[in-house]
Amino acid sequence: MTIFLDDIELANLMCSPKNLDCLAVGFLFAEGLIRSKKDIKKVFADEKDGVVWVELKKARKSPENLIARRFITTGCGKGLTFFDAALDGGRLRSKSRFKVRVDSIPLLMKEFLRMSRLYRLTGGVHSAAICSARSILVFNEDIGRHSAIDKVVGECILKGIRTNDRIMVTTGRISSEILVKAARSRTPIIISKSAPTDLAVRLATDFGITVVGFARGSRMNIYSNAWRVVIEREER
Amino acid sequence: MTIFLDDIELANLMCSPKNLDCLAVGFLFAEGLIRSKKDIKKVFADEKDGVVWVELKKARKSPENLIARRFITTGCGKGLTFFDAALDGGRLRSKSRFKVRVDSIPLLMKEFLRMSRLYRLTGGVHSAAICSARSILVFNEDIGRHSAIDKVVGECILKGIRTNDRIMVTTGRISSEILVKAARSRTPIIISKSAPTDLAVRLATDFGITVVGFARGSRMNIYSNAWRVVIEREER
Repeated sequence: MTIFLDDIELANLMCSPKNLDCLAVGFLFAEGLIRSKKDIKKVFADEKDGVVWVELKKARKSPENLIARRFITTGCGKGLTFFDAALDGGRLRSKSRFKVRVDSIPLLMKEFLRMSRLYRLTGGVHSAAICSARSILVFNEDIGRHSAIDKVVGECILKGIRTNDRIMVTTGRISSEILVKAARSRTPIIISKSAPTDLAVRLATDFGITVVGFARGSRMNIYSNAWRVVIEREER
Repeated sequence: MTIFLDDIELANLMCSPKNLDCLAVGFLFAEGLIRSKKDIKKVFADEKDGVVWVELKKARKSPENLIARRFITTGCGKGLTFFDAALDGGRLRSKSRFKVRVDSIPLLMKEFLRMSRLYRLTGGVHSAAICSARSILVFNEDIGRHSAIDKVVGECILKGIRTNDRIMVTTGRISSEILVKAARSRTPIIISKSAPTDLAVRLATDFGITVVGFARGSRMNIYSNAWRVVIEREER
């Protein structure tokens, strides 16, 4: 997919050809180029040719900066998002008191995997979701774990669904870049059936975000800010 | 890791901090910046600080091109390698008649997974190997599936182990970029326990490369050039 931002070719992404408008908006959000739906004047997606045009309400002051940026917005292992995050640390720190009951997590994961239809067909894609403590609000699949998350965040932005005090769920590993996507969208809990990286756990600890990894069946590992996962004791 | 090529900062990669010299050489090979060990004058890796300096024998004619390139060498979903491949198609086409017996594949996979020590410890890394029809010659693990493959190819280059008429094995999905890494290193067979992408299978069909996916236990799917996988009939 090619994203044009105010007629400037911003980025080319390999992705699954569905919900490209959500992906474009989620990508722009993740890269700090938009902050909310209010920044967007118009989104037009040509899903057949894989092109999305996004127009902003305010013209950007310096299109040159945008051109310089487009080469560094990649999605995998370049580390730039992390450096941004290090600078942004204070702003990304969660002040939310949101918690979830431990027994909701297996239920959410079960529903999440049940919805992963394309994964069951192909074994070759990632899924992502934004959930309340009880149910899945937005769900997407994509060949890339980064794009699957950008799609759910973008869909929330376009549909006006708040992402703060929500749970982000992913099939992919939680790297520092993925953790920063959670932090930027203000979701204080991120859950994966896969592993987190060391760097992601360190960032999550600093940002006040709860990382749950290897959430499989009734098992899970909690890596940071475990206070958000509430284990209710049985009455005696 | 930061790679300096002839004192120019070429690329920053997120990777697992081991065998950085192999990763740097494999990365330069994958990006078409070196063709063999003969192109290399010196490799020096500072594994502690994550920096590798590579000096080439011939000075590059245009260091400016290198600077322009470094922004597009990323590893995940940018598609540029694919476009190179499309132009390079003729050169990447395999002329090898190499075959493998179908019953060697589960044995190779079993040994491959047995060697994946870091994966068993963390559940969070990928493995890659270069194998003969009978055994694993070079094995590496890395947080990224691209880097794991660059490490094994780089190690083969540094140790003078030929990669043509070999088998590449990976835990990761076989995307078009991974397929092009196999093609460039002249390995005519690539095997994964995961899925290939549609585009990778189309490229593999054109390039004469055999793609085996979902190689798990005694099962596997063969997606292209199945003639390389020999099923011997039992004598009656």
